Amino acid sequence: MSKEIPYKIYLEENEMPKQWYNVRADMKNKPAPLLNPGTGQPMTAEELEGVFCKELVAQELNNTDAYIDIPEEIRSFYKMYRPSPLVRAYCLEKALGTPAHIYYKFEGNNTSGSHKLNSAIAQAYYAKKQGLKGVTTETGAGQWGTALSMACAYFGLDCEVYMVKVSYEQKPFRREVMRTYGASVTPSPSMKTSVGRKINEEFPGTTGSLGCAISEAVEAAVSKEGYRYVLGSVLSQVLLHQSIIGLETKAALDKYGIKADMIIGCAGGGSNLGGLISPFAGEILRGEANYDILAVEPASCPSLTRGKYLYDFCDTGRVCPLAKMYTLGSSYIPAPNHAGGLRYHGMSSIVSQLYDDKIIRATSVTQTDVFKAAEQFARTEGILPAPESSHAIKVAIDEALKCKESGEAKNIVFGLTGTGYFDMVAYQKYNDGEMENYIPTDEELAESIAKCPKI
Amino acid sequence: MSKEIPYKIYLEENEMPKQWYNVRADMKNKPAPLLNPGTGQPMTAEELEGVFCKELVAQELNNTDAYIDIPEEIRSFYKMYRPSPLVRAYCLEKALGTPAHIYYKFEGNNTSGSHKLNSAIAQAYYAKKQGLKGVTTETGAGQWGTALSMACAYFGLDCEVYMVKVSYEQKPFRREVMRTYGASVTPSPSMKTSVGRKINEEFPGTTGSLGCAISEAVEAAVSKEGYRYVLGSVLSQVLLHQSIIGLETKAALDKYGIKADMIIGCAGGGSNLGGLISPFAGEILRGEANYDILAVEPASCPSLTRGKYLYDFCDTGRVCPLAKMYTLGSSYIPAPNHAGGLRYHGMSSIVSQLYDDKIIRATSVTQTDVFKAAEQFARTEGILPAPESSHAIKVAIDEALKCKESGEAKNIVFGLTGTGYFDMVAYQKYNDGEMENYIPTDEELAESIAKCPKI
Repeated sequence: MSKEIPYKIYLEENEMPKQWYNVRADMKNKPAPLLNPGTGQPMTAEELEGVFCKELVAQELNNTDAYIDIPEEIRSFYKMYRPSPLVRAYCLEKALGTPAHIYYKFEGNNTSGSHKLNSAIAQAYYAKKQGLKGVTTETGAGQWGTALSMACAYFGLDCEVYMVKVSYEQKPFRREVMRTYGASVTPSPSMKTSVGRKINEEFPGTTGSLGCAISEAVEAAVSKEGYRYVLGSVLSQVLLHQSIIGLETKAALDKYGIKADMIIGCAGGGSNLGGLISPFAGEILRGEANYDILAVEPASCPSLTRGKYLYDFCDTGRVCPLAKMYTLGSSYIPAPNHAGGLRYHGMSSIVSQLYDDKIIRATSVTQTDVFKAAEQFARTEGILPAPESSHAIKVAIDEALKCKESGEAKNIVFGLTGTGYFDMVAYQKYNDGEMENYIPTDEELAESIAKCPKI
Repeated sequence: MSKEIPYKIYLEENEMPKQWYNVRADMKNKPAPLLNPGTGQPMTAEELEGVFCKELVAQELNNTDAYIDIPEEIRSFYKMYRPSPLVRAYCLEKALGTPAHIYYKFEGNNTSGSHKLNSAIAQAYYAKKQGLKGVTTETGAGQWGTALSMACAYFGLDCEVYMVKVSYEQKPFRREVMRTYGASVTPSPSMKTSVGRKINEEFPGTTGSLGCAISEAVEAAVSKEGYRYVLGSVLSQVLLHQSIIGLETKAALDKYGIKADMIIGCAGGGSNLGGLISPFAGEILRGEANYDILAVEPASCPSLTRGKYLYDFCDTGRVCPLAKMYTLGSSYIPAPNHAGGLRYHGMSSIVSQLYDDKIIRATSVTQTDVFKAAEQFARTEGILPAPESSHAIKVAIDEALKCKESGEAKNIVFGLTGTGYFDMVAYQKYNDGEMENYIPTDEELAESIAKCPKI
């Protein structure tokens, strides 16, 4: 119990989890099912299998099995970049002068630059196993698209990425990473799909949106033989795959006899947060332990802290099933000056239910505070963090400073989801003192929430 | 001896070397001394201390001590990103169908994205210890400048980077990383130094060169109280610091009872190559073992394979001391279409002497072959490699394919010096099929080599 704690705790390869953990099995209140927007009835496996891979649909609907085996092929890929380190932030602690012990689980040490690869490789594997030719997806800035390209290259799958046109043109670097991995990247809206052509006709010169790219990717998947659509966040299957983050974190803490007091994660669609907290939330749900779990979201896109728990569309194009989630309304788009990521209008059903049941708390932070924390973290801990991850850093620093006041030596664990190498335009804005904050008004949120379907 | 070899061999923190290895101590033919360009005499410690930090000068001139302690403060910083992994390239081996075992030492898992940080933190430490206010340096694309910025942020040192103007303007991302770490970044030529003003006057609208940036950085260092100049490659002190790469590699191989047959490294100024091979070359020099050590350089900048072993200026501006090295002449500049890094006209004196003594071999490769290898590596091993590192990948793949022919199960070790996240413009050129090769003519090389000083 009193082993000296290294800067980086690396589990051995044979200590890497062999099963994902499905927190839904331990939830008394299960997340609400996806609904067919036409009928208002729960989506059946058959309906979902037209769009998604068969085995992933089974995982999406599985509310009962607590553990699901990670196939050997996926474990082999994981071994190229996992187990990821749990880092003791000695240098940050020293700079803050806090008695708190700060740990972060670092998921950025792979070419996708984030945790997204954990689910991308799983989804690509099941697509390959089903005998598919390829998969389609959308991407905004390109983090998820990059991860999926890497996964598809590994399994020899075709990968079609619809990239929001403005990002395709203004952020060419991630586009080129995807191309290097053999993906075809199409600026959206395109002329390749009927929905793309329609949007181009109605709004000539449009620079696209994530909602439009989703619609194109879904159409491309369902209209071609041997293709399915895949998604990098929000879905319960994604949180299942991402549970490896939390399981490794727990195993590393246990190995050194450390009991976490607080667990902090940034929250956009919920994939990182859900994965990080799953095993800890499971212990709370089973009455085995208690943790203070905190979701951190941007003040400009505050779905948990200011949204409503309602059925809503998963996409702005309204082609996907309805999900019950904390939402700002599918038409809500963060202000253009919002640079810090985590722009999704809703929150994963699992995270939403855990929040509604008060298993976890949530808070929001402004982006200038986030970049200030990012800068301090970079200068002390060396790693240049992704803006998304820096939401968690900001709150971890605040909590460590509270410990300095109170003298408490809390164990604070947070998720460092990725690196910021492809976010230098946002950093430049901060460095130049030109970054501004945006906090939506109550009226603005009420208006977009009012557009949610009445179910 | 028959332990199962994991994908990634991580040494424990307490297995990280406590001393750097100075290969010069074991060299019968020592590298030739730096000369004062005015007098033609060896530079004295006093002369060098006007430009460089005192303790670094001592390391530069130390040809006798085989081991030099790594100060505890530097070890603490190293622990944030070291020991770096030695990776078994199982997936690449499988893709090639080779009986060879391929290992790579991966130095890209830190925010500078390369091995440069190993020396940057050492140089910043000695500057701090000497009570200096700050350091100055030059940077081209920004890899070294980024590493130095990180190191200076850690020790609270002022960091002034002169960045080649064309890179400052066209590659703003690394510039912003440096600014995030608190460095001041000045496009060179600037109006801040007399040499900069002179060049701006003579060549209005010039986009700068590395030689000019060096001259400005040196002038800035010597003309201000409390500043010294630091350099990221070529110098013997840098190779000393970089020996940690080779020492960790050797320790990881020994831990698993693996005897390397070949060791392959890319070579620009020689910092990575020299660091990687030092302990192995030491064994050869002491008659304890034999290895096939191979330096890989770009066909467009082939200092070892087509240069001459002569005294030459270290910089195109001819303000620095003379070094004896394999050189293409300090006026040699690779063709503008050269995208793959490793553009230095000469080679570290240590590496040059080892090559001249036939302790190591050298070969050159064209950049389209390099990017093809980079693409294959990225798609199989996941990591997007730096173009520089990909020179070593190309030759490692070639050697592994030779093993496939011969049936030999050689152990091939190469240095993966860094990641290519900030090199996507070059990757795009390759992806678009627009990359061309350039091989200088004998006449061209003879002309620039003829301009070397007659000593």
